[in-house]
Amino acid sequence: MITKKELKWVCDLQIKKKRQEEKAFVVEGKKSIEAFLAAGYQPKAIYGTTNSSAFSVETVNEPAMKRMSSLKNPSPFLAVFPIPASMALPTQERLLVVDQLTDPGNLGTIIRLCDWFGINHLLCSPQTVDCYNPKVVQATMGSLSRVKVHYADLVDFFQENSLPVFGTYLEGESIYSLDFPTAAVLVLGSEAHGISEELSPFMTNKITIPRKSSVGPESLNVATAAAICLGHFCR
Amino acid sequence: MITKKELKWVCDLQIKKKRQEEKAFVVEGKKSIEAFLAAGYQPKAIYGTTNSSAFSVETVNEPAMKRMSSLKNPSPFLAVFPIPASMALPTQERLLVVDQLTDPGNLGTIIRLCDWFGINHLLCSPQTVDCYNPKVVQATMGSLSRVKVHYADLVDFFQENSLPVFGTYLEGESIYSLDFPTAAVLVLGSEAHGISEELSPFMTNKITIPRKSSVGPESLNVATAAAICLGHFCR
Repeated sequence: MITKKELKWVCDLQIKKKRQEEKAFVVEGKKSIEAFLAAGYQPKAIYGTTNSSAFSVETVNEPAMKRMSSLKNPSPFLAVFPIPASMALPTQERLLVVDQLTDPGNLGTIIRLCDWFGINHLLCSPQTVDCYNPKVVQATMGSLSRVKVHYADLVDFFQENSLPVFGTYLEGESIYSLDFPTAAVLVLGSEAHGISEELSPFMTNKITIPRKSSVGPESLNVATAAAICLGHFCR
Repeated sequence: MITKKELKWVCDLQIKKKRQEEKAFVVEGKKSIEAFLAAGYQPKAIYGTTNSSAFSVETVNEPAMKRMSSLKNPSPFLAVFPIPASMALPTQERLLVVDQLTDPGNLGTIIRLCDWFGINHLLCSPQTVDCYNPKVVQATMGSLSRVKVHYADLVDFFQENSLPVFGTYLEGESIYSLDFPTAAVLVLGSEAHGISEELSPFMTNKITIPRKSSVGPESLNVATAAAICLGHFCR
């Protein structure tokens, strides 16, 4: 039987401040939990409304699961994992940087794309949505267990960085006329605001995805733009 | 003053059956409405909680707008446009086909991608979510005004079709080793079910987006896959 205190502890992890205090986050769904376990995460707790052959669970009833879950239709399994300690950013590989992404679904999709295309590290501006937000975790479908997500001031980062930097803009060199070095930085801004003005001096190349149609959308969604850029650069 | 009857007429258009009976659909937001007007759509009605310099509106109060709107935070403008009459599919250009896409956001993103990459016609299986569903319309950000969306039985279509057909699968030829002819069909299935088994004999090429990482996601979201394929094929 889960205690009231434990139930509150899990529910509180939906809030960023509490996650930071507890250094823990929630993962829902069998497949996602298995991905974190396979990646070496040591669970603080795994709750289940039923048993699993893949991992041992603390049994809870459905009302308790419903309270802990952030999903409309809760999965039978919910785990609490520790937030990994921050680590240094690599200096000799491909790195994706996102500036001020507020939509959890977009960040989740981008983490999944990094996982697909072998980008191991994602750097986010401090204003970007927390990668341990339940909606982001859900959208990554387990990829968050394999991609390291960092948060840091981007001006500070670029001042130290010596890799070439490709920033995506509405106007710039076509991505199709460029090769992406095996050690380089790709920067994506939000669809509404683009890359912050103060980061502009650090861009080695301002790049764009050419629009084929004469009339058409003014811009692309940031997750879509990430898919096209990574699909081209990491082929 | 909007009448009760008119209010009900607009509210009913959130339901597919009613949209089909009335041959009309709702577009919300100034920019999207302008896109449909620019594309030559003749509005059946435009409602506004305020006036616009871009088009004339029938003034409604905020409670009425809130009732008509499908958005949490309604825009000040909402228009009703006629569903265009169905037209023949082109036989000598690039065509995108989607099989059993149920998520409105994914269909909306794909319509926007078609618009960006100059794909003028999208063919959907009858089980695919209705493109005039309010969530789809919203996600297309006006692109639905420029892309023609068709619904038809896909077996019937492929039996008549003489263009090469590129079907996306989890395994197949790498998209990067192929060129996409200027007249060809690209087929995307749902992430969960892929392309229906019965369509398999019609595929000229079974293609895939190679995964770079050794471990990683099993599949990509269909809108992400569309972005990568179109970004490569329509460059």
